[in-house]
Amino acid sequence: MLGGCGFVGSHVVDALVAQGHSVRILDRQPERFRSPLDGVEYRFGNFSDHMTLIEALAGIDTVFHLISTTFPSTANLDPKADVQDNLINTLCLLDTMVSLGVSRILYLSSGGTVYGAPAIVPVPEDHPLRPINSYGIVKVAIESYLEMYRNFRGVSSVVIRASNPYGPRQAHSGVQGVISTFLKRVHDGQPIEIWGDGSVVRDYFHVADLARLCVMAAASDSVGPFNAGSGQGQSLNDIIDIIRAVSGANIATNYKPGRQVDVPRSILDVSRAGKTFGWRCNIGLDEGVRQSWAWLHSSAK
Amino acid sequence: MLGGCGFVGSHVVDALVAQGHSVRILDRQPERFRSPLDGVEYRFGNFSDHMTLIEALAGIDTVFHLISTTFPSTANLDPKADVQDNLINTLCLLDTMVSLGVSRILYLSSGGTVYGAPAIVPVPEDHPLRPINSYGIVKVAIESYLEMYRNFRGVSSVVIRASNPYGPRQAHSGVQGVISTFLKRVHDGQPIEIWGDGSVVRDYFHVADLARLCVMAAASDSVGPFNAGSGQGQSLNDIIDIIRAVSGANIATNYKPGRQVDVPRSILDVSRAGKTFGWRCNIGLDEGVRQSWAWLHSSAK
Repeated sequence: MLGGCGFVGSHVVDALVAQGHSVRILDRQPERFRSPLDGVEYRFGNFSDHMTLIEALAGIDTVFHLISTTFPSTANLDPKADVQDNLINTLCLLDTMVSLGVSRILYLSSGGTVYGAPAIVPVPEDHPLRPINSYGIVKVAIESYLEMYRNFRGVSSVVIRASNPYGPRQAHSGVQGVISTFLKRVHDGQPIEIWGDGSVVRDYFHVADLARLCVMAAASDSVGPFNAGSGQGQSLNDIIDIIRAVSGANIATNYKPGRQVDVPRSILDVSRAGKTFGWRCNIGLDEGVRQSWAWLHSSAK
Repeated sequence: MLGGCGFVGSHVVDALVAQGHSVRILDRQPERFRSPLDGVEYRFGNFSDHMTLIEALAGIDTVFHLISTTFPSTANLDPKADVQDNLINTLCLLDTMVSLGVSRILYLSSGGTVYGAPAIVPVPEDHPLRPINSYGIVKVAIESYLEMYRNFRGVSSVVIRASNPYGPRQAHSGVQGVISTFLKRVHDGQPIEIWGDGSVVRDYFHVADLARLCVMAAASDSVGPFNAGSGQGQSLNDIIDIIRAVSGANIATNYKPGRQVDVPRSILDVSRAGKTFGWRCNIGLDEGVRQSWAWLHSSAK
């Protein structure tokens, strides 16, 4: 599990452990919000280090590649580093898998950026890939190489194009997700800052639902891309309404000019994952935001 | 002009010089088949060297980026090097253009690889980009970054997705083009080797027609991708028939197993270039093969 101490990774680890799988994690640092889990093997290092990677992959059946060194909102600042750290290092990973005979990989891609501005909503997996930022460009290139390595090098791959996961243990630094960012500001009594008029629509879903899908997909023989999301759209203003209801707080809002990186409306068609795995989201937004709010209270000092 | 001493580059230089433009070339080495041209400034070095690049771009209005360090048939052998040498170095180029205020670039992409296996033929520019080899994956990523730099960094770009150019000064080493490769083998009295049954269809067009389009496109305000090709398809067997007629030689053929990198049929829809620039190919295949055959005789020792 590459990136097993991150937000999504920590939930995928939970789902794997709950099913009795042995898990080895390679990440740069321990989980930020939890102590190490019993029975999980932790290795700390950078996956760009080839020997570290070789040692981490030895004896592994299935690789979960959840590492991204960038965020959609930051990758444009240094596209060269984005390509170097994510694309080139993923190619090293794939070459190492070929060398060691590790033949299955799940890759966490991005349903919010690989399609660019959607021509149809909800967006199906066969929608053209027209990314408009570096984050999406790199994810598309990685997906294409995964397909190439599947066709020519014997590495079977499944790709999860996640929309906007949220939930406990999501960092609230302002780059990882609006729900956790908004909750933290409400918790701290600060106004919520919104880029644009709050009408931007996204598909938010609980990270535990994403984790469950990742485990099902990795364990299957399925290949290629699967969208993951609620299949529903919520505007930023909808999210603020839910947070208002859950928190009971009097929320101040601060509207700022829209960002060029934002496409106006992105909702994923998740029927392929439904048909293939019988998967759908179990946790609704109201319940999920309540969980996140409760977690924030228990974790915030 | 990056790559101005290569096959396509040398013809673009001819077209620019014929129109009275000042041309500065950066390439790794001089032209292989000609002496330096009067009035053209040559600089030799690697475009991955930042200072070399800065010096080459100083005072330039329009960059022609014709460098590819790989070929479709070779890039898969080392995808990391393909990404490093072509994608990352192109990002360096774009950043350098932003720094120096050079605001126009023409990029030579690949109509044969960016689309992957075509869903419709002839293939229009808005066909989904589904490259199946590293060469195409990198070209797609570069095109996406060009669009991003166009939207966010003020670098105007036009992209020529060329099908299969051929003509005088094309190397006949077996990787650059089948027409020159076949002609050389016939010239040397060797049998022609064909991957597959010879039914693979491609869109071949004369490099001088491509060069003329590049100059028109670069000088225009047009942005985005333009297919370039004859709009016609010829099978390898068709090509052999034309070579037989042109050369008068008794040609032996040697059919070998098909390659996985080959899509069966690729013809480009070139109507966008026609409508926008009034461009079409002027040189037919019979005449073009005759020219190439004559050039081969005059150049081969």
